[in-house]
Amino acid sequence: MIQSQNSPKVTLVGAGPGAKDLITIRGSRVLQSANAILYDALVNIDLLYGISDDIPKVYVGKRYGKHYAKQEEINRLLVEYAFAYGHVVRLKGGDPFVFGRASEEIAHVESFGIPVEVVPGVSSAISVPSGQGIPLTKRVAASSFWVMTATKRDGSFSEDLILASQSSATMVILMGVRKFVEIAREITRYRGESTPVALIQNGTLENESCLIGTLGNVETMFQNIDISKPGIIVVGSVVLEHPFFFEDEVHRVLHSRI
Amino acid sequence: MIQSQNSPKVTLVGAGPGAKDLITIRGSRVLQSANAILYDALVNIDLLYGISDDIPKVYVGKRYGKHYAKQEEINRLLVEYAFAYGHVVRLKGGDPFVFGRASEEIAHVESFGIPVEVVPGVSSAISVPSGQGIPLTKRVAASSFWVMTATKRDGSFSEDLILASQSSATMVILMGVRKFVEIAREITRYRGESTPVALIQNGTLENESCLIGTLGNVETMFQNIDISKPGIIVVGSVVLEHPFFFEDEVHRVLHSRI
Repeated sequence: MIQSQNSPKVTLVGAGPGAKDLITIRGSRVLQSANAILYDALVNIDLLYGISDDIPKVYVGKRYGKHYAKQEEINRLLVEYAFAYGHVVRLKGGDPFVFGRASEEIAHVESFGIPVEVVPGVSSAISVPSGQGIPLTKRVAASSFWVMTATKRDGSFSEDLILASQSSATMVILMGVRKFVEIAREITRYRGESTPVALIQNGTLENESCLIGTLGNVETMFQNIDISKPGIIVVGSVVLEHPFFFEDEVHRVLHSRI
Repeated sequence: MIQSQNSPKVTLVGAGPGAKDLITIRGSRVLQSANAILYDALVNIDLLYGISDDIPKVYVGKRYGKHYAKQEEINRLLVEYAFAYGHVVRLKGGDPFVFGRASEEIAHVESFGIPVEVVPGVSSAISVPSGQGIPLTKRVAASSFWVMTATKRDGSFSEDLILASQSSATMVILMGVRKFVEIAREITRYRGESTPVALIQNGTLENESCLIGTLGNVETMFQNIDISKPGIIVVGSVVLEHPFFFEDEVHRVLHSRI
C-alpha cells in the first residue's frame, strides 16, 4: 500500500439536496482541500469540476438494483485512501447523518485511529419540500414533522409509519417511490382519502418534478413517476401551501428559483 | 414612502445553525446582493460583516420575554422595505421552513404582488445533533426522527409528543429548554428512565455546550442549563453514539470541529 506524506483523516461532507450551490461554504472549502474524494450517487457531479485531476475521485454510489459498492467496501476504501493519500472527503447527498449510515463509516474509520469530522449539509428531507413552497410546519396546521422510510429491511411497513399516520405531523417519507401506492393505502387507513400528498423527484435540480394529489388518487400520480429515480413523499395539510393551489400568477413562481 | 429604483422582491434565506460558514453558497451570494436585510435573533451576526453600511440591516428577532418585533410588524416591514429599497433578504436561523413562520411572511408579501423566493438552509434540528456526533437515524436503532415543539400555544403538551414517545423515532424537540424537566417526565411515561437524552445549546458555535444524561436524571442536567438561551433536546438511543460514551481519545474529538 502507498503511504502518504499527509496525515490520514476523513471528513464526511453533506453535499446538500442537489443544486450545486446548496452546499455550505465550509463543505465547499473542505472539498477543495481534499487529497482524495469518495462520492455518492445523489451528489451533484458539478461539485467535482475544477478539482485537480491529481485528486482521486471515486464513485461509491448505491442505487436500486445497482450496488456499485457495498457498505463494507466503502468502509474499507475510506481507510485505504486515508492511509494512501491523507485527507479523504466522503461526499454524501443531503446531510450525512440522515439515513446516511454515517455512524457505521465513522466507527470503522476511527477503529483504525483515523480522526473523523463531519460537515453538516442541507438535508433533502427538509429543503426539497421547501424548494417547492411546501413548509414542513405551519402554525395550527402542522406543529411537527416526521422523517422516515416507510418500510423496514424486510419490506414490511414500520410501526412508526402507523403512529405517524395517527398523528398530525407532516410526514416526509424517503426511499418510498416504488411502494408509493401501498404506502398511501396504509396511511389512508388513519388519515382521510382527501389528505394532500406531494411526490418530488430531482429536487432543486433543473429537471425537478413535483406531483400533487391526494391519498385517494395516488394510482394516477404513480403512472407519472420515474420509478428508477428516488423521490420524496410529503403527506399532510402543508402540501396545500404549494403554489399549485393558488390561482394568481405570483404564487405560481417556484419559490426556490433564484 | 421612498420608492426604490429596484424592483421589489423578497428572498427568505436560511442562515444555518450558527457557525458563519454553515450558510450555503447560494445563501451567501444572495445576501451579498441584498438592498436591505431583516435578520433574526438566531442568525450569526458575523454574516453581516463586510456588507456595505449603505445597506439597511434591521434586527427583527424575537426572544423569550423580549419581542423586539411582532410577526405582524415583521410582515409590514418586509413589504415597506421591498418597496423602498428593492431586494430585501429576510435572514432566518436554520432553515426558513422549520418553525420559521415563513408561510405567513410569504403570504403577506405576495399579497402585495411582490415575488418571494426561498433559499433553504442547514436546519439546526438536524445539524446541531450531527455536530455533536449524534446521528438522527441509525440502522436498527432508529429508523426515523420526529422534529417538534413539545407544547402547544396554550402551554399544554401536544398529542404528537405522546405518539412520538410511543414510537421508536429519535425525538428532536425545539423550544423546550424551560420545560425540559416536565417534557422528560412526560416522555418517561412511555419510554424508560434509562432512555438517553442530550441537550445542546449554542450549537456549532465556539461556546457550544452539550449535556448528556437519561430521562431519569434530567433534574441534574437542568441545573446546568442557561435557560435564557434556546436549546435542542434529543431523545433516543442514537444519543449513545455521542463520543462521551467512548473511552478512547479519538472518539472524544468533536466530530464537527474543522
